Amino acid sequence: MERHVCSDCGWVHYENPKIVVGSVVTYEDKFLLCKRAIHPRKGFWTLPAGYMEQNETTAEGAMREAYEEALAKIRIRDMLALYNVPHISQVQVMYRATLDKPEFSAGEESLDVQLFSWAEIPWDNLAFPTVYWALHQYEQIKDQESFVPFSNAEGDMLKKSFEMLKR
Amino acid sequence: MERHVCSDCGWVHYENPKIVVGSVVTYEDKFLLCKRAIHPRKGFWTLPAGYMEQNETTAEGAMREAYEEALAKIRIRDMLALYNVPHISQVQVMYRATLDKPEFSAGEESLDVQLFSWAEIPWDNLAFPTVYWALHQYEQIKDQESFVPFSNAEGDMLKKSFEMLKR
Repeated sequence: MERHVCSDCGWVHYENPKIVVGSVVTYEDKFLLCKRAIHPRKGFWTLPAGYMEQNETTAEGAMREAYEEALAKIRIRDMLALYNVPHISQVQVMYRATLDKPEFSAGEESLDVQLFSWAEIPWDNLAFPTVYWALHQYEQIKDQESFVPFSNAEGDMLKKSFEMLKR
Repeated sequence: MERHVCSDCGWVHYENPKIVVGSVVTYEDKFLLCKRAIHPRKGFWTLPAGYMEQNETTAEGAMREAYEEALAKIRIRDMLALYNVPHISQVQVMYRATLDKPEFSAGEESLDVQLFSWAEIPWDNLAFPTVYWALHQYEQIKDQESFVPFSNAEGDMLKKSFEMLKR
């Protein structure tokens, strides 16, 4: 395996897969989405999510990201999905979460934050395939108290999520 | 947040939580455990598990670790648990897996590999609390086709898993 080594001091940088933590946040029957203020996919809509930090749990990380990106205090319900994106060495842990009150606004990494009904979701302007997967998988189990978490989309859902990115 | 910076070249080493992938591997009604040949907890028994590497999925990582530590070709069934160990910035993804045939032997990081019935498991010599959690949680759902994956043990199971380490 290739490793990054500092040419001056020989420090070996062991690269490990990174964990992204995020959530499908709902208030009543609406979904909280953030318009990205940063690259990649600046200007496109995403779920509140980001890299997990040291000394936090996956759920704490998802709560922190929702606060940083949307100034939203979310309540985590349960794990929605675990996605693998091996070509960029990323594991994404997505939760189902709720807002107690419709209080939020754009954090530093967001241009805008809005609640959308399912029909209003800007499907043509989503940032990443996993945003599409998480929203659709959430919709499948929204009335269930508990369920087996999802993994990567397959078949038609996978195909549609990639078509979205070509636009 | 504190970052490790190379004093010669200024390279900033962003530390991120690390992912451990592993599995409760069964053959008929027995559990595959490995006696650790390396620190920490050398000489104690563990599940086949280890750090996830770049460009693999969590399930592929769990299969790789079972092969490296126990020369065992395992079949992944489903996710058993996701554990958070924030004080060491670790996320553990544990699968339920099976062996088609009782073929295995000690890999480089193992002193010994054995199949144990539930009663034979060396409970007083397990390497880590999460090994205790995963085995007990597996036992709770062993007859179920599907289930909601577990998270960190609580209450009595947590207490017993820590008592084990004091021995």
